[in-house]
Amino acid sequence: MKRPGCWKMLAVAVCMVLLAGLQAQDLQGHVSIILLGATGDLAKKYLWQGLFQLYLDEVGKGYSFSFHGAALTSTKQGQEFVAKVLQSLSCPEDVAPERCAELRGRFQQLSQYRRLRTSEDYMALSKDIEAQLQHEGLQEAGRIFYFSVPPFAYADIARSINSSCRPGPGAWLRVVLEKPFGHDRLSAQQLATELRSFFQEEEMYRVDHYLGKQAVAQILPFRDQNRKALDGLWNRHHVERVEIIMKETVDAEGRTGFYEEYGVIRDVLQNHLTEVLTLVAMELPYNVSSSEAVLRHKLQAFQALRGLHKGSAVLGQYQAYSGQVRREQQKPDSFHSLTPTFAGILVHMDNLRWEGVPFILMSGKALDERVGYVRILFRNQAYCAQTETRWVADQSQCLPRQIVFYIGHGELGSPAVLVSRNLFRPFLPSGSWKEVEDRPGLRLFGRPLSDFYAYSPVREQDAYSVLISHIFHGRKDSFITTENLLASWAFWTPLLDSLAHEAPRLYPGGAENGHLLDFEFTGTQLRFSRQQPEQLVPGPGSAPSPSDFQVLQSKYRDSLLISAWPEELIAKLADDIEATAMRAVRRFGEFHLALSGGSSPVPLFQQLATQHYGFPWAHTHLWLVDERCVPLRDPESNFQGLQVHLLQHVRVPYYNVHPMPVHLHQRLCAEEDQGAQMYASEISALVTNSSFDLVLLGMGTDGHTASLFPQSPAGLEGPQPVVLTRSPSKPHQRMSLSLPLINRARKVAILVMGRMKREITLLVSRVGHQPKKWPISGVLPSSGQLVWYMDYEAFLG
Amino acid sequence: MKRPGCWKMLAVAVCMVLLAGLQAQDLQGHVSIILLGATGDLAKKYLWQGLFQLYLDEVGKGYSFSFHGAALTSTKQGQEFVAKVLQSLSCPEDVAPERCAELRGRFQQLSQYRRLRTSEDYMALSKDIEAQLQHEGLQEAGRIFYFSVPPFAYADIARSINSSCRPGPGAWLRVVLEKPFGHDRLSAQQLATELRSFFQEEEMYRVDHYLGKQAVAQILPFRDQNRKALDGLWNRHHVERVEIIMKETVDAEGRTGFYEEYGVIRDVLQNHLTEVLTLVAMELPYNVSSSEAVLRHKLQAFQALRGLHKGSAVLGQYQAYSGQVRREQQKPDSFHSLTPTFAGILVHMDNLRWEGVPFILMSGKALDERVGYVRILFRNQAYCAQTETRWVADQSQCLPRQIVFYIGHGELGSPAVLVSRNLFRPFLPSGSWKEVEDRPGLRLFGRPLSDFYAYSPVREQDAYSVLISHIFHGRKDSFITTENLLASWAFWTPLLDSLAHEAPRLYPGGAENGHLLDFEFTGTQLRFSRQQPEQLVPGPGSAPSPSDFQVLQSKYRDSLLISAWPEELIAKLADDIEATAMRAVRRFGEFHLALSGGSSPVPLFQQLATQHYGFPWAHTHLWLVDERCVPLRDPESNFQGLQVHLLQHVRVPYYNVHPMPVHLHQRLCAEEDQGAQMYASEISALVTNSSFDLVLLGMGTDGHTASLFPQSPAGLEGPQPVVLTRSPSKPHQRMSLSLPLINRARKVAILVMGRMKREITLLVSRVGHQPKKWPISGVLPSSGQLVWYMDYEAFLG
Repeated sequence: MKRPGCWKMLAVAVCMVLLAGLQAQDLQGHVSIILLGATGDLAKKYLWQGLFQLYLDEVGKGYSFSFHGAALTSTKQGQEFVAKVLQSLSCPEDVAPERCAELRGRFQQLSQYRRLRTSEDYMALSKDIEAQLQHEGLQEAGRIFYFSVPPFAYADIARSINSSCRPGPGAWLRVVLEKPFGHDRLSAQQLATELRSFFQEEEMYRVDHYLGKQAVAQILPFRDQNRKALDGLWNRHHVERVEIIMKETVDAEGRTGFYEEYGVIRDVLQNHLTEVLTLVAMELPYNVSSSEAVLRHKLQAFQALRGLHKGSAVLGQYQAYSGQVRREQQKPDSFHSLTPTFAGILVHMDNLRWEGVPFILMSGKALDERVGYVRILFRNQAYCAQTETRWVADQSQCLPRQIVFYIGHGELGSPAVLVSRNLFRPFLPSGSWKEVEDRPGLRLFGRPLSDFYAYSPVREQDAYSVLISHIFHGRKDSFITTENLLASWAFWTPLLDSLAHEAPRLYPGGAENGHLLDFEFTGTQLRFSRQQPEQLVPGPGSAPSPSDFQVLQSKYRDSLLISAWPEELIAKLADDIEATAMRAVRRFGEFHLALSGGSSPVPLFQQLATQHYGFPWAHTHLWLVDERCVPLRDPESNFQGLQVHLLQHVRVPYYNVHPMPVHLHQRLCAEEDQGAQMYASEISALVTNSSFDLVLLGMGTDGHTASLFPQSPAGLEGPQPVVLTRSPSKPHQRMSLSLPLINRARKVAILVMGRMKREITLLVSRVGHQPKKWPISGVLPSSGQLVWYMDYEAFLG
Repeated sequence: MKRPGCWKMLAVAVCMVLLAGLQAQDLQGHVSIILLGATGDLAKKYLWQGLFQLYLDEVGKGYSFSFHGAALTSTKQGQEFVAKVLQSLSCPEDVAPERCAELRGRFQQLSQYRRLRTSEDYMALSKDIEAQLQHEGLQEAGRIFYFSVPPFAYADIARSINSSCRPGPGAWLRVVLEKPFGHDRLSAQQLATELRSFFQEEEMYRVDHYLGKQAVAQILPFRDQNRKALDGLWNRHHVERVEIIMKETVDAEGRTGFYEEYGVIRDVLQNHLTEVLTLVAMELPYNVSSSEAVLRHKLQAFQALRGLHKGSAVLGQYQAYSGQVRREQQKPDSFHSLTPTFAGILVHMDNLRWEGVPFILMSGKALDERVGYVRILFRNQAYCAQTETRWVADQSQCLPRQIVFYIGHGELGSPAVLVSRNLFRPFLPSGSWKEVEDRPGLRLFGRPLSDFYAYSPVREQDAYSVLISHIFHGRKDSFITTENLLASWAFWTPLLDSLAHEAPRLYPGGAENGHLLDFEFTGTQLRFSRQQPEQLVPGPGSAPSPSDFQVLQSKYRDSLLISAWPEELIAKLADDIEATAMRAVRRFGEFHLALSGGSSPVPLFQQLATQHYGFPWAHTHLWLVDERCVPLRDPESNFQGLQVHLLQHVRVPYYNVHPMPVHLHQRLCAEEDQGAQMYASEISALVTNSSFDLVLLGMGTDGHTASLFPQSPAGLEGPQPVVLTRSPSKPHQRMSLSLPLINRARKVAILVMGRMKREITLLVSRVGHQPKKWPISGVLPSSGQLVWYMDYEAFLG
């Protein structure tokens, strides 16, 4: 009984396998691919070839296909164009010519041109597809619309597809969009909103063809397949810098119409280089083949990008550019373009993996070579005991260690992945990547090629072929989601705005550029290494620079006045604070500093954080002069400003930081919580005689200082060292040191900056001791020193 | 009337000038220099020549001299020896031979040998000096005693000088001491105390002859004279690393008696290289010619040194060494020395100028070349837009930028100061330093010599001549003060102690060393780059290493138990905490973590701080499980441990840190201050349902957990979430989360490590729910998860 049963079961199983095989073969369904703009340059150069490649790769795997070239061109012209393009399609090297001709013939049979202009045309197309499906008894799998058309045509086409050309139920729709995706955050948002009214997010495939470049597409798989070696290395402790570079030798001639509107940052950095940056920087998902996980992690990388400022960029423009624009755009001779054709950008990531690691993005036209690469240079953390001549390339940890994703062109001439031999032997899938043969004499990134494990693709593939295959397989991680796009624009737009009126440095072009475009950075500040020899583009008139002036000392209200341009004033104040701190620490072992909030002290905090290496922070106590009655982490909180601009950059021990207790028992400045009294007793316990070593004050345009206001008598006199007060502006409730306490300080510095303060500065210079009217006039240390720090705008107007 | 008066006054003035001139010439007084150990090697090789040079430099400047060579040798032998040495003295190149012979003759007349053994001998010397002074009508300026004798002789000589040979009133005494100055902190302290009983601090000149090397002596003047260029560069933002190197080709043969006791760290690093380090690292005084300021800043540099640990060093020993010791010290064949003849050390400075910059100290015998240098390598903070072949040495900021103080020998063969041409053109005093002529083909530090501005001394001077001149001029900053000496030993002794039983890596010697001695670092951890091929010195038996074992999962008290070797256990716990944190942040936007104090979590904190780049610190709230009633900054405070090992390395916002309020109103845990209630209400306000996402506990050998003790019922049950308790060990007063609050957590992890815990682990495995006897047995989250993390020693004993 047992045996026959067994046999029967086995037979059933075999049958099921066979059936499953047949089903897989037959039941995947039919895919219609509509190439919009089928007679355009991109289509001619890449897209038809990409579709043919898709056909070659996928035919016989259970799908059937039809390819519809579409455009506005008349049917006849279009058909002729397409016929010509189809004849020139090529097969991979390993396909014999006769076989190739046969395959090309079949592809031609599946392809046709049709004119698509009106909504009716789309409806007709849809009907034709349905008719074909019915006629051939096919199930529809889906439709791909590839928009190879200018962005202004998007909306109409999208509307027509949505209303008249969606596939039947159960089949998918994929629309493929080409950049530009807007010009800045707002326009990108508008375009995205418009598209979202026609398509679901999952239906849209925004192409950044860089993501289809083989070396770029290999970044994540490489990180994944070499996890073990990279795990400990891929972070700020080991990476010295990341360079993401795309250099071109061509210029913008013939394309200045487009280029004038975009410039190099929008053309290359906002999209291509930023995408590459996120692939390098993102946290590697556990499963890199999960599109969802990759996209999520990529978005997190965007969130970690530190905001850019004007100083994050250097801009250049090749000398002939303005002339080309004048010629091509019929501009007058007086026209000078400010559009950059070269940009170097310094990017930092605010997370623990990358904090402090410079990501250098650079692209330009009319440079000395055409090349694209991502280079991860690791820190040299070795010391080699032998003299340098004895170092052996694959053994010495003192020679440069780098991983390069060589995107293409350059000395090497093909895409490649390079890993220094003193780093590790990488794994690359042997089916698609092969070792590069050595080429003696060829040096890359400071070392001979033989110093690297070097791999290039077994079969070089054009980016569009790669991406068309990914679209077909629904691999959304190779495309730009709306969130991703908007995150990128959100990152770039403030910089673009701030640079809008900057004059780029002119460069001659090619090898002549010499060291003119080299740039360097300190902190987050980028600048050209060499001084500009001459400025040929008329830029905005330049203000006198700080170094043209000296710091002036005189008197104001009978006290010492120090006056200078803002930058020098801040530098001087910071120096003076450090000197005071050093003296206090030497004498008493500690330094008690009470700081005001607001925007004026921000550059001071930054100066102290980045320029004062010897500051005795470990012995400094930080107190607040006043506080708004908001939670400490509120952006309005004075303490929050201190936290962001100073505390997180220096090492003040936790218990030396004394925020005002404005938020006790989950209430703000409730009288009964006695926060002011608590702060007073903390001061009295820790600060000898309650005499701060230094109190830093500001002055409001109404003559207030600390949070002592003319309208509110609290704190102007009386025994209470710390008081609750009321400000005329929001948030009204405040806590403040009182005037009598401030006047016990050994030293009081009042910082006044900006043109807005001119009027009150003049006024206060004339009033006597009238603290009830002008609280600032009551600042008069009983035995300490008072110094005014005013910039020229506040002082001279 | 007027005119004669005028003339008279003028005559008087002229007279005074003449007299003043005469006084300056005549009245500087007489200096007696007593060279103790005048017949020794050092004296023969350097000191007599140094004294002669002093005579040449100073004669005719108003001083008169006598030179007394002294030793234990009999008068006749000593005189013969000295006479021979004196005949071989040489003059600088620019002195003509006849003139030199004449000067040498005069010096010989001023020099004599005398035997000095007993206190009486010293008394007699003193009398002779006094007699000579009286006879020649000279004023005594001072006496210099140069101790070129073994340290065991110091005390007797010092006593004799102090009691019987001090100069007369108004004249100075200077005693010059040669290393070794002790063997560790204690012996150095003892020696110093002994010397201090005979001499004032200002009378002692401890020689480190490295401070007399011309390139070393130039460090501070160079920093001073190039302040403007260096000001912005000499800090962690610009310096990539500092290498302080002394390589020798010779070995210790013939000196193993001394060497066995000292080894390379005591012989070279503790003194020479450390002195150089402080010259590079110290804050530059405003006035570098003030000895007092230089010495004070130097001492501050010592205070900023981060403590060394075993992992800060790599040690080597050349293969022939043990054999040499056996031969020279008559040791048995079984003897293997552990004395290092090679050491690489990684030093960090804990100040804002140098934080994070590696200072690499390296020295060794039997290496491939003889050379000494200090190399300051600056970070490459540039990107060069042209391809590398077009970089020009003095213009490209992408080529290495370095400053090297070349102490001597090596490829260059002479002392030098090198500054990369792409850095700045340095100022060096042209009277004493001249530009080095290019030597094509010579490469130094990766670049051809022509890439540097290179300077060498106009006249090469031996270190002892330089130092003898400094002694004569009282320039104490070229010598080691007692404070400096003890600071150096305080820095090195803990490392020496921890390395005492480490087996050094054996190396063959010379060029054969290959890459065997290369080392590299991660964080503060140093290790050889290559695995040891085989261990020839029998070291202490090695324990099984963590990677030999897997993390085990099983059950303990019906809860999940994770067990492993300590390192893997900590790694696993840290991973689990991060995973929990990520989940919590994804779900709730924040993560509430309550941590225990004590020593067990320290490696966990370090792991989290250095290995978990993706940890969501910005969204993490840190709470304390318990606290000792001590001020927060007390070393006993749990919070202080958290601060030192975790908080200062990661970025938790200030207001997400929740220390227990054990110190309110300047009192510790006073009931009436209601600290426990305050903490409870803070928890209740911020932590949803008062359910922490994760509570990390430990277990005491008495079965306590948190600060819940068997002897004290508080917190074991009842409504109070936070309680004051009493520990059987000091400090007795504690604050603690209660058991009921702990049991509300979503997850509780209990970390138990070390052999000491074996007994309680066994015991607790058998008891039921008896929190009053074993508080740990009361940990049972009501709806959360409990996981035990035990290392094998705690679990298996």
